[in-house]
Amino acid sequence: MATIFSRIIAGEIPCYKVAEDDRHFAFLDINPVQPGHTLVVPKKEIDDIFDLSADEYADLQRFAHKVAHAVKGAIPCRKVAEAVIGLEVPHAHIHLIPINSEADVDFRKKAEVSAERMQEICNEIAAKF
Amino acid sequence: MATIFSRIIAGEIPCYKVAEDDRHFAFLDINPVQPGHTLVVPKKEIDDIFDLSADEYADLQRFAHKVAHAVKGAIPCRKVAEAVIGLEVPHAHIHLIPINSEADVDFRKKAEVSAERMQEICNEIAAKF
Repeated sequence: MATIFSRIIAGEIPCYKVAEDDRHFAFLDINPVQPGHTLVVPKKEIDDIFDLSADEYADLQRFAHKVAHAVKGAIPCRKVAEAVIGLEVPHAHIHLIPINSEADVDFRKKAEVSAERMQEICNEIAAKF
Repeated sequence: MATIFSRIIAGEIPCYKVAEDDRHFAFLDINPVQPGHTLVVPKKEIDDIFDLSADEYADLQRFAHKVAHAVKGAIPCRKVAEAVIGLEVPHAHIHLIPINSEADVDFRKKAEVSAERMQEICNEIAAKF
């Protein structure tokens, strides 16, 4: 069965898409830890990110580097944090989270962001990409 | 003034080194969140990891991919988590943490690992690299 991320990439489930190339896809996390929290995924359906070949992994991270710059350009923050946990959805994904303090990376806390604000943020990050 | 990581790389401060190449360095976190918690750093002294060029960043991540495989080979775990927070030490670094559950990535908790066990883990990861 296709992962939820493969269904998002295929357009079967709507998302706030911020960037895409032939092998990678980036969209806003629907349950953001902070406003601007973005997920970067390979289109290839693979569970463990380190099961990507070294080349595939480096390419994914090169794409994430560009997305991180777009996030930083769109959302005022000290840094963009990066996290790969990988036990929730069996499709490798990189979290990019704009932060101002270490406490801003806490997956138990969710930010309240309206649908309108999500769309604005999406547009701003996409424009910076 | 050199960062603490630059002093570790230069050998001025001892560390449990697990891997090194001409531009990158990996060593055990002295305050591990889990046994096997490893830090991967560029030798170039830079604060924000995303201020590395796309090429430099992709090369660093390619090195981290190889270190992550060595960590997974040495430490029984479901996955190796990855985190970049970057607000503690002003020298970019990637945390690689062997985990069995999401709760295993909690920077507020530290694992108790004896100096002898740290050296064993270091040797095991280095041997897998």
